[in-house]
Amino acid sequence: MRLLSFQDEGRIAAGVRIGDQVVPVAALPGFPDDALALIQAGGDTLARLDAAAKAAPASTHKALAVLTLAMPIARPGKVVCIGLNYALHAKEGGNPIPDYPAVFLRVQTSLTGPNQPMLRPKGASEKLDYEAELAIIIGKTARNVPEAQALDHVAGYSLFNDGSVRDYQRKSTQWTMGKNFDRTGAFGPEIVTADELPPGAAPLRITARVGGQTVQDSTTGDMIFSVARCIAILSEVMTLEPGDVIATGTPSGVGYARKPPLFLAPGMVVEIEVEGVGVLRNSIEDDPAF
Amino acid sequence: MRLLSFQDEGRIAAGVRIGDQVVPVAALPGFPDDALALIQAGGDTLARLDAAAKAAPASTHKALAVLTLAMPIARPGKVVCIGLNYALHAKEGGNPIPDYPAVFLRVQTSLTGPNQPMLRPKGASEKLDYEAELAIIIGKTARNVPEAQALDHVAGYSLFNDGSVRDYQRKSTQWTMGKNFDRTGAFGPEIVTADELPPGAAPLRITARVGGQTVQDSTTGDMIFSVARCIAILSEVMTLEPGDVIATGTPSGVGYARKPPLFLAPGMVVEIEVEGVGVLRNSIEDDPAF
Repeated sequence: MRLLSFQDEGRIAAGVRIGDQVVPVAALPGFPDDALALIQAGGDTLARLDAAAKAAPASTHKALAVLTLAMPIARPGKVVCIGLNYALHAKEGGNPIPDYPAVFLRVQTSLTGPNQPMLRPKGASEKLDYEAELAIIIGKTARNVPEAQALDHVAGYSLFNDGSVRDYQRKSTQWTMGKNFDRTGAFGPEIVTADELPPGAAPLRITARVGGQTVQDSTTGDMIFSVARCIAILSEVMTLEPGDVIATGTPSGVGYARKPPLFLAPGMVVEIEVEGVGVLRNSIEDDPAF
Repeated sequence: MRLLSFQDEGRIAAGVRIGDQVVPVAALPGFPDDALALIQAGGDTLARLDAAAKAAPASTHKALAVLTLAMPIARPGKVVCIGLNYALHAKEGGNPIPDYPAVFLRVQTSLTGPNQPMLRPKGASEKLDYEAELAIIIGKTARNVPEAQALDHVAGYSLFNDGSVRDYQRKSTQWTMGKNFDRTGAFGPEIVTADELPPGAAPLRITARVGGQTVQDSTTGDMIFSVARCIAILSEVMTLEPGDVIATGTPSGVGYARKPPLFLAPGMVVEIEVEGVGVLRNSIEDDPAF
């Protein structure tokens, strides 16, 4: 099933996409009209939602093309990001292959949804970079979960553009500032439930395109820390809650490491794609706050 | 005014403390019974609340001693932490005096409230350390705010124990994991509105005690980045929203840098105090998740 969120008269509604049509959850009796609440409900809620959406009459459908999508989960409890999770990307930045992941967090204000502009904070920096990533959506509370059971805690997957302001990322030892400028990252377009993908969402081709040109091209099978291992390592430290998002790191080919460097500027369009998960598309605009 | 949150039959209620009594906001008509909503309401809401609480009849009061307090804001939108903000603390860890702050984030699951146990993740680590900090509570949305106007965006101040699992803090270049074990940090006991303190809450004596022994003793006037400067620097990057919490860094005297080192263990009690703000008290227990 493909679960998404969309703007509906000033609020954010949930929908199930079937091809180019979306069944609004509001049209399906007995389900909360909120993607996070649907995931939090647990049990067989998503399977029942899938069945109800497939059975819904065509009169309830909305065309995907007319909807303004929002982040699949509007306010995730936490967004945890894994750095340096592909060997070639660690190498292109001059970093050793890690034996423990570099982990950082993003706040909700740093993210935008599918088809919305990502903002370049011109005035502060012109070094906005893209990072194609697979995102894990937690479905069931996880604390200190062994790797062998970790995938039981996954509701599904989505896409993440871990947009980074490179000079601010390196103003101190901690990357937080470069990873948290307003709306420099993107998340979406939808959540693909885990049953539609191979276990741990690997191996799947992962690519980024800028202006149609492929700039990152790898496979999730090349992750140093697999989806299951990420969940095990993170859940040793922190309780992962339903709706939490884990961005699993980016492969090589990011803009700052290219010769010449490629930074994002207004007018450009970035697309992140993972085979079977979808395409996350964002244009670039300058942030009016500067 | 002193605004707090407390457990009330399974939900979290807001209250105004007057001496050893608390006026429940639920007893005051026209105010939302939620600390975050009160701060988000903006304008003169907190001043009107203060007046209403002072005018409330004694029959509405509850004794502070019988209440179970919660974090003053139960689910802050973000918790942003400044590292190495006191020169002697930077020096004790072998770090240079920074010209830009090291910033990291804490998730809500990493925090606990006043008088609640802080958890040592024994099984993962026995290196749980304390850090006394002044916390800023944002009152008005701030983006790219100059230092001279920054204090207009402060609702008040509280206390923060930026409890840190030292070996996990150094497993990679990023401190996130050592700062985000479940309930290793503490926040509270209440929010003191900015009008009750000197501008920017400095200079105020800041101390930590472990088992009654003073282990940190400094003044907020020794911060490298003042409250106003922290808000200016952070708001260049990210929109600060009402109810967001900024932990402003700790002075020297933390446990790992002592000779011999002092780590927290079950049975110990840690107290964080800032003159005029209050005392945040937590005992230590082992995390049952291990």
